Amino acid sequence: MSASGFASLPRPPYYTVIFSSRRNDQDEVGYAEAARRMVELAALQPGFLGIEACRDAAGFGITVSYWTDGAAIAAWKHQAEHAVTRAHGREHWYDHYELRVAKVERAYGSTPAA
Amino acid sequence: MSASGFASLPRPPYYTVIFSSRRNDQDEVGYAEAARRMVELAALQPGFLGIEACRDAAGFGITVSYWTDGAAIAAWKHQAEHAVTRAHGREHWYDHYELRVAKVERAYGSTPAA
Repeated sequence: MSASGFASLPRPPYYTVIFSSRRNDQDEVGYAEAARRMVELAALQPGFLGIEACRDAAGFGITVSYWTDGAAIAAWKHQAEHAVTRAHGREHWYDHYELRVAKVERAYGSTPAA
Repeated sequence: MSASGFASLPRPPYYTVIFSSRRNDQDEVGYAEAARRMVELAALQPGFLGIEACRDAAGFGITVSYWTDGAAIAAWKHQAEHAVTRAHGREHWYDHYELRVAKVERAYGSTPAA
């Protein structure tokens, strides 16, 4: 995640994983550290393009990560530390989550791309 | 947006618009009312499937809307009141935004689909 919050991405096509979740009220410290570590790890993965995330005061959050292709997403899914953290999260951090994998076909922003 | 925050969606494929934005600190009342109205209007559009949104305390937000197909997204883009509100928002509410249109290929959640 850049300081601005926006991912700096190439032109489409590329892939995205949209992860919507509602946090429970447990283990804020452990969760925050793991979230930080997962962004750090994801950024080291081949095919990682960027990530954007927000969470509101009620605990509902959306994290959107961007990848070159489906193979990069599959490799990240099977990355060992990520898999362990994901399993821990399912048990301990979330009331509910939904995950969608999509192919970005078009993109534009409020200022011209660099 | 359902009370839970999660959109209740059919099986893929379907389309999504990922709108990432950073609010300025102006016109919170006008913005909130327009955001509420846009969700209400979107829900009346043919092909609308659902919407999920969050914004953090720093003003960074992600809104993900879901649609049956690209034609439904195009029709929403050209809906008259939406177009006027969008133009107003570009001028008055956002420091920056990015918009991505993507085709959802796979989806799963933390509980079995109904």
